[in-house]
Parts: sequence; structure tokens; C-alpha cells
Amino acid sequence: MASVEILDFMGDDLMVVNAARVSFEKESYELTLGDEKLINYLAKHNHVTPFFHPQVQFRIRMPLFVAREWYRHQIGFSRNEVSRRYVDSKPECWIPHVMRERDSNKKQGSKEEPVEYADVCKELMEKSIDMSLKCYNELLAMNVAPELARTILPQSMYTEFIETGSLAAYARLYKLRTTSDAQREIQWYAREIGKHLETKFPICWKALISSSE
Amino acid sequence: MASVEILDFMGDDLMVVNAARVSFEKESYELTLGDEKLINYLAKHNHVTPFFHPQVQFRIRMPLFVAREWYRHQIGFSRNEVSRRYVDSKPECWIPHVMRERDSNKKQGSKEEPVEYADVCKELMEKSIDMSLKCYNELLAMNVAPELARTILPQSMYTEFIETGSLAAYARLYKLRTTSDAQREIQWYAREIGKHLETKFPICWKALISSSE
Amino acid sequence: MASVEILDFMGDDLMVVNAARVSFEKESYELTLGDEKLINYLAKHNHVTPFFHPQVQFRIRMPLFVAREWYRHQIGFSRNEVSRRYVDSKPECWIPHVMRERDSNKKQGSKEEPVEYADVCKELMEKSIDMSLKCYNELLAMNVAPELARTILPQSMYTEFIETGSLAAYARLYKLRTTSDAQREIQWYAREIGKHLETKFPICWKALISSSE
Amino acid sequence: MASVEILDFMGDDLMVVNAARVSFEKESYELTLGDEKLINYLAKHNHVTPFFHPQVQFRIRMPLFVAREWYRHQIGFSRNEVSRRYVDSKPECWIPHVMRERDSNKKQGSKEEPVEYADVCKELMEKSIDMSLKCYNELLAMNVAPELARTILPQSMYTEFIETGSLAAYARLYKLRTTSDAQREIQWYAREIGKHLETKFPICWKALISSSE
Repeated sequence: MASVEILDFMGDDLMVVNAARVSFEKESYELTLGDEKLINYLAKHNHVTPFFHPQVQFRIRMPLFVAREWYRHQIGFSRNEVSRRYVDSKPECWIPHVMRERDSNKKQGSKEEPVEYADVCKELMEKSIDMSLKCYNELLAMNVAPELARTILPQSMYTEFIETGSLAAYARLYKLRTTSDAQREIQWYAREIGKHLETKFPICWKALISSSE
Repeated sequence: MASVEILDFMGDDLMVVNAARVSFEKESYELTLGDEKLINYLAKHNHVTPFFHPQVQFRIRMPLFVAREWYRHQIGFSRNEVSRRYVDSKPECWIPHVMRERDSNKKQGSKEEPVEYADVCKELMEKSIDMSLKCYNELLAMNVAPELARTILPQSMYTEFIETGSLAAYARLYKLRTTSDAQREIQWYAREIGKHLETKFPICWKALISSSE
Repeated sequence: MASVEILDFMGDDLMVVNAARVSFEKESYELTLGDEKLINYLAKHNHVTPFFHPQVQFRIRMPLFVAREWYRHQIGFSRNEVSRRYVDSKPECWIPHVMRERDSNKKQGSKEEPVEYADVCKELMEKSIDMSLKCYNELLAMNVAPELARTILPQSMYTEFIETGSLAAYARLYKLRTTSDAQREIQWYAREIGKHLETKFPICWKALISSSE
Repeated sequence: MASVEILDFMGDDLMVVNAARVSFEKESYELTLGDEKLINYLAKHNHVTPFFHPQVQFRIRMPLFVAREWYRHQIGFSRNEVSRRYVDSKPECWIPHVMRERDSNKKQGSKEEPVEYADVCKELMEKSIDMSLKCYNELLAMNVAPELARTILPQSMYTEFIETGSLAAYARLYKLRTTSDAQREIQWYAREIGKHLETKFPICWKALISSSE
């Protein structure tokens, strides 16, 4: 099952303000209207350094093919992930709700609409996944090393990781992965992250995701 | 097929020396014995900054499960990779030469020896891969978007990417991925990289990989 | 005046353990003896990724010549600093307690002992600093832009910044900046940081700073 | 004397194109019109990863107060710098050509126009610098360690460093440091870098610096 759980965080909107105000030897003890304006100014003019101070830690469970795109975001992130070299618990795989049709426009990965024989396709996928899992189990039963057996598992397999990232790093990920040319599946995860950050850093988050970058 | 091809590079042993010597307002025009000593001193004492200047670019083709570990190395690397969201050419998958047995010691992922019924296991894997590929093709034939169809492909699928990294970054990768607890498959790639770098940066490479870090 | 003040932090020893244990689909709720062993194993074998999750924020006041070396540590750090382009408050400068003698060994920047005419030297430095500050004030009084007037201020001027770094990043800084060839002044700051981190992350800190890297 | 000297570089516009085209399993052998369009598309839509592959190395000589802002740019840069802990050659200092007036608008550091008594101010600065240098020499003559003596040197002192950065990193620096609120002195260095990169990467550089980020 997909999940995005917040584990810990450091800072608030005020932390960003005070990181910025140190340039002027100033400090705020409570968020003022002037502070909000400053946050918007910083975000709008791409002065991102103050937004790198707040940190958030998540536990995320996502299919491997999504994780591979997620991990392209490196700057400002730390991650530790389950390894199927060491673990041989029952793998779980993802199946699309909507069997989206190919879009001839390569920039978009798919249309919103399902293909004509969506049910047949879904059944095909389920069967393929089942057979892969069955093979995986047989290999383990015959004492093959998990690090080899895992290689036939499908890329729709769920993986789990703990990720710490800065507010600035998550804002950048959010903006790149919620555009229309991002795959629907990764968009969902980016939005889940966004919901958490909007709660913890309401002024900063709004400013960051509406800036032009 | 696995491959590691060097595409371009910048620098040589002398570049490292001159990056270090700038601290002392010195410059070398030809590698001297003193320069070699300096390189060894820097590597031994973990003064790695001069080794970050030389850059090397590779085109690498490796199975996805190896790529996922490879990509954990982020600092000092840039990568661009083929995307099966946009490409639906025939996928190729990797199969182990030796069907290594599980090692009860979890730190090691496998024993050197094959399992008892290695041939049966290999056949099982081949059949599982074939069925996954067949399913993939059927999904594409029914017009499913490649970004969805790809999700049932096995993790042994080959992927290809262009990677630029600094000498220091490759040395760190090499050392972590050629230890005995690294999976055999990633060790092979690390050693292939090493062969190229040993040729281009003979003094530095030797110094870096024999340092204690 | 020199100062190192902790402003905020995220995590504890357990956070590192759980970042590591996610590889094995395990989680600890309280630090066990096994967890301590794991921390030591990770630090000793240079598996540093779990140590990148905890974050600490400091407000630091140090002379500019120290800050310049401090800032060489970039990976895993975020900083915002007072700018004398915008600020023209009275600058404060650092003076050495001990007027250390030149060491003919260039690897060491100085001997422990003072020069023969230490008092004369100190007076010279004080006078030079005073004259620079006086000139700075005169330039400001004649309406010269602070961004130009500041350029004649000495490198012993105190600067102030807010810095967020990961536990792993601080451990690396600590180890490189408390060696005998580091300048005494930066060693003091590294040790002050160390005192804070030893309190917040007792097991991890001890493991990290005694590892061989 | 200020200087920006290119020492080495890796890649060209085609390297960026081929890093991007690997996503589609394509490769170009000569830059086509389609390739130029691709470059512009990538830059405009902030798909910066292909621009991280080309690398350029410079030897730069700039005043310390400029270097401090320059070094804020960390991601994608490697640097080694002369150290006055080890070197005690005659320091050289920068003096402004135009003694710019304070601007009441703090976002701008200064007006374009000189202050009323510009000549008096210049003389003041020169005298202050001369006295600092004289004091520095006296301290050295009395055997004070260079690492201590250097601390009274003015922030206008020239420093020298070797810097390797990616095309993407330089484009970001250029854009942030050629805006009207950047200090004139750093703008000059950013533009010098720009002239070199425009020659080596004509299509990419134009695309990058005219994108909205």
C-alpha cells in the first residue's frame, strides 16, 4: 500500500525568516506581516538559501518505478531504503487503477482515458505479477540468494524508505513532479508531501510553490 | 549486454597536483617525484578536495537492480538515463552466470557457490523473464501507455545512462562497491570504472584506492 | 565575542538506528545494546548515510578568517550570514591571546609558544585594527557605500551566521578541524560544536569521531 | 590584479544534447536545428540535469570580499585556494575605481555615482591599506606565525583559487550575480566567466542565461 508518513521535522516559517534576517542583524520572535512579505520576496526572487534550514523526515512507501524518478532529486535529501538483499518478506506490487492509453505526444506519458480492453490488460498484469512472485518464492525455496532472486521481481514492487529533506528541496521536487508531464503516480506522492508541508510551513510553502522557478 | 564506455574526461595527475599546490602559490608543469609524494600525502590524510577537479564521463549499461545501488552515490555525480516512459524498444534482461546460494550471514548477500539445482533455477528465471516480456509486449499492443506497461518488467532489465563524475567521487564509489559485502554484480562495474581511471590518472588512482577511508 | 549557540535540532541516536534498520524492515522504539553495536559498526565501516538524517542548527559568531575555512565544509550544510553590504554597525575584531611563533614546519601553522616580543606585536595589531576601524567610520561618514567601506576592514573581524548541518557533516568537520595541523582558532569552534552534539547524540557522536575516516 | 583564466574544459553543446537524448535512446553526432530546439526547451523548462555534464576549470584572482560571496555557490563547484597560513608573499589589495555613494535603498548596495569627496576617500583607503600591510610585515619580521599575522590584512586583499564547475552551476551563478542588486565587483567576475562559456557552449549558454529561473 502507498503511504507517506511524516516522522519528524525541525523549524517553522519563523526559522526561514530568521535565517534571512541574520543578513541584516535582525531577528523576529513572532511572525509579522513584514515577515510574510519577506518570505514572499525571497521565494519570488529565487533567494532560496533560507529555505534550506527547515528539515522534514518522512517514511514513504512507493512502487520502485516511482522511487527511481523520486531519487533523481538528490540535493538536500538523505535516504535509507529497505534492501531485498537482506529481506525476503512477501513483496507487494502496484497495479494501475486506470489502464491509461498511450499518448502520441511523447512529452505526456499517457492520456487520462483507459484503453479499450482495460479489464483484459489488468488481468494480464495481475497474472504476470503473480507468476513473477511465484518464481521468486520458488527460487528462495531452492536456496537461491535473495540478492539474485529479487532480480526477476517486477518494477511495480513497493519499496520503503526513510527520507530527510529540506523545505527548499521538497519545494523543488513538488514543482517538478506536479507538472502535467510528470507521471500521474509520482504526482500523487508529491502532493501528499505537499499536504504535510503546507500544514507545517503555511506561509513558506505557499510562497515557494507559487514562485516562477 | 553489460558495458562501461568512457566518453570524455578532463585532467590528469598534474591537475590534482596543481589544485593542491595553489594553496602554496606553486605550480608544476611536469609531474615530479615530489608531486607523487604530495598526491600520496593528500590521499592518505583524506585531503580530498584536489581530487574533485578531474572529471570523467561514461556511458554505462547495467541491470536496474545494480543501477539502484549505483545511484546511491550522488555527491559529485551527474546522470541522464533512458526512460521507458518514452521508449518501448525491446527490453533486455540480465541472468546470473552462477546461481549463488544464500549465505546465512546477512552482511554477505550470497556464497560464492551455486545452489544444488542451479540449472532448474536458471530455467525458472528465464521463463519468468520471458513471460514478463511477453506480457509487456501484449500491453503495448493493446495500446497501454509505456509508462504503465513498463511496471511489470523485471528488475534485471538493462538500463543505460550517461554519467559524469569527479575522480574523488569515483574513488569513493570504487572503494565502497568493491568490498566483500558488496553484491558481485556491482563489484564488476566498479572494477571496470577502475580500469579506465587507472589508465588516465595512474598516480592518483593508486593513492586514492589504497587510502584508509 | 566568539560564540556557538545551538538553536534547534531534529533527531537522536534512535533516529540513526531506525534509518539504518529500514534496510532490514526493522524498527527500534528504544535504544538497545544491539542498537549501540549497530551504530558503532556503521561508523567504523564508513556507512555514513544513516548519520545524515539528524539535523542541528547553530548561531555562530567567529572571526572572518576562521569562517573562510569553516565554509570549505559545504556538503550537508546550509548557511545564512550577516552582510556588511547591508549592515554598518560597529565591527568587532579578534586578537590572539597568545602571539604564537612561526613554525618552520609548514604543515603546522604555528608553534604553541609566543614570539619574543609578544606584547609589542599585540600592540601593533591593536593599533592596526583601530586605524582600520577609524578609516571605515570616516568613509561611512563621508557617505561611501558600506559595501565599499567594508573592504578595508581586517580579516579578524567577527562575522555571524546561522548554520544547519547534519550529524554526519558535523562529524566530518570536527575530525578534519581538530587535527594538530588545523589552526588553533578553528579547533576551538569545532570542539564547541562537539560538546553540543555529544549531549544530543551521545552514542553516535562517540562512534563517529573515533572512526578511522 | 583581477583575472579570470580558463585552464581546461570538457564537453560542448553536443554533450548536453546527448545527455538529454539518452532518455530516448537517441544520439546526435553533429548539432542539428532540432538539437538547438531541444537545448532551448530544456533550459526554458528548467530540465537542468543535462547541463551538469560539461565541466570548466578556471584560475581566478579576486578580492577576498568578492570571493566570500562567490563561494556561496557550492553545488557543482570544487575549489582550491591559496592559504596565507602557508604563504607570506606580498599581499596585493583592491581599491575601487569609483567611490560609490551609499544608496538609501538597502536592496541596492550603492548608487552608480561617486561620493562628493571621492579623492579624499580614496586616499584614506590607500593609507589604511598601506598601514595594514606595514603592520603585517612587521609582525612577520618579529616572527609571528603567518596564520596570525594575516588576520589584520584588509578584506580587499586579492586571493587566488582554482575552480571547477559544471555549465549548469556557472549559469546559475551568472544569473544570480549579474542582477542589479549584486555588487558591481562580483558582476564583473560573473561576466568574465560568461564570456568564456559563451565561446565554448554558444547554444547552451544563450539558452541558460535567458531562461526564467
